[in-house]
Amino acid sequence: MKILVTGSNGFIGSHLCARLRKEHEVFYLARPHNAMQLPGANGATFFFENNNIGALKRFMRENQIEGIIHLASCYIQAHQEEEIPDLIQSNVYFGTAVLEAAAKADVKWFINAGTIWQNFNAPDGSDAYCPVNLYAATKQAFMNIAKFYSGTTDMRICTLKLCDTYGPNDTRRKIYSLFEEIARTGETLQMSAGEQKLDMLHVDDVVEGFIHLAEMMHNSEDLRDEYVLSSGQQLTLRQIAANYEKEHNVHLNIQWGARPYRVREVMKPYKGNVLPDWSPKR
Amino acid sequence: MKILVTGSNGFIGSHLCARLRKEHEVFYLARPHNAMQLPGANGATFFFENNNIGALKRFMRENQIEGIIHLASCYIQAHQEEEIPDLIQSNVYFGTAVLEAAAKADVKWFINAGTIWQNFNAPDGSDAYCPVNLYAATKQAFMNIAKFYSGTTDMRICTLKLCDTYGPNDTRRKIYSLFEEIARTGETLQMSAGEQKLDMLHVDDVVEGFIHLAEMMHNSEDLRDEYVLSSGQQLTLRQIAANYEKEHNVHLNIQWGARPYRVREVMKPYKGNVLPDWSPKR
Repeated sequence: MKILVTGSNGFIGSHLCARLRKEHEVFYLARPHNAMQLPGANGATFFFENNNIGALKRFMRENQIEGIIHLASCYIQAHQEEEIPDLIQSNVYFGTAVLEAAAKADVKWFINAGTIWQNFNAPDGSDAYCPVNLYAATKQAFMNIAKFYSGTTDMRICTLKLCDTYGPNDTRRKIYSLFEEIARTGETLQMSAGEQKLDMLHVDDVVEGFIHLAEMMHNSEDLRDEYVLSSGQQLTLRQIAANYEKEHNVHLNIQWGARPYRVREVMKPYKGNVLPDWSPKR
Repeated sequence: MKILVTGSNGFIGSHLCARLRKEHEVFYLARPHNAMQLPGANGATFFFENNNIGALKRFMRENQIEGIIHLASCYIQAHQEEEIPDLIQSNVYFGTAVLEAAAKADVKWFINAGTIWQNFNAPDGSDAYCPVNLYAATKQAFMNIAKFYSGTTDMRICTLKLCDTYGPNDTRRKIYSLFEEIARTGETLQMSAGEQKLDMLHVDDVVEGFIHLAEMMHNSEDLRDEYVLSSGQQLTLRQIAANYEKEHNVHLNIQWGARPYRVREVMKPYKGNVLPDWSPKR
């Protein structure tokens, strides 16, 4: 397949593209400020700037792009007011521009990366929307824009909602990076009471999920509007730390309860509809 | 009350502000390119530019704004790709910036203008989202953003979905303006088959609806997230033309069926939950 990927230089994107290019022709869609090294592409790269939707459409047509995996995202856990323009621009406008070009270039399918944080405290399995933060709200806003394109064109659109992810080369300051750091330095880490449950999925499993969904879309299988990639396990932060200590034979100096929970801390992650015929291997 | 209005120079906005200022202190929030004559304000005007959310917040605080009526909107029936930046900027980003400032300035309530076009072909009374066009999709996207603010602050937020509106000084080329024109000139107007139903509400009734909802929000009444302002009548375009001919004792030269229906023509408008304790007088 000829697949165009946005966000290819991110954590998920770089792992996904490295794997995708083994079997497919991978094209990149990047914004000029991301014109850093973009490894893993065996097709051309398009730089989106100046709202050049027309040029993007021609790029898709000329390269006969069949499908798009849209990972590009501006992630902000707790936003500041000056970050709002970038949140809307990156998470709502950019995707809309890609959909508009894709619809006109007869792209067959579009996979959008969402987050389980769109469903804060929703009863298990329900689809109730309730955003953890403004980031999650912009993700929902984009899904509702996407619904216009799925309703008015032949393009198939599906959102894959991601839980917490981890793996090699993760530059986001996530929990395992912190554990690694304090295990090495012996530093003390102040944390919340640690009773919040997390659904942690290895990036290799995330990558297989995207590839599996891309194949389902390519084969025109009957699909829902959205699926969740979940590890199937919800462990408390304390359990995750204890497992880490056991596995790596280290001691983590964690002061549990030294900090309050975050505002709108997710105590129990959303489950939703897990992607069918896929399961985590790690 | 001290009320801040966006879109005050539009059709609904100008009628609303003229009525509002009789009993309330009306402030305007405008964008610099709309720095035309803004009649009807008896409070100050704030010009929003350069993403100055901080300055807007101080303006709201200093003027002790209690409530906001958000009418500003970029309306495009069938968009062109070059209009997408303005659609997102006006209908998603601008409202988000206002909500952010309002939340920090302890504004008590926020009324958002939506459209029944967010619910294309939805079964009567259901809340199913299905946008007629990209404009309606951006309206839904903004409601998703608003849900973040209603869930994380004390501000009360309610959307009033509008049906078709008409009345004096309507510069939008809507149906009654067209009738007036061809009645005067004798010109022939080519139209679709005319069997689509419309829900036409006079602007005076729209204004009373907004004022009634503002009072309910001020009095902290228990409210849904959204209501519809409806005339309670759904007439076909042919019936509306016939009524116009009778009422004005004129003949309209209309060639019914000379044009196809629009893509996604709304044949039967959404009903939804009509605003309680309000009914049209015209």
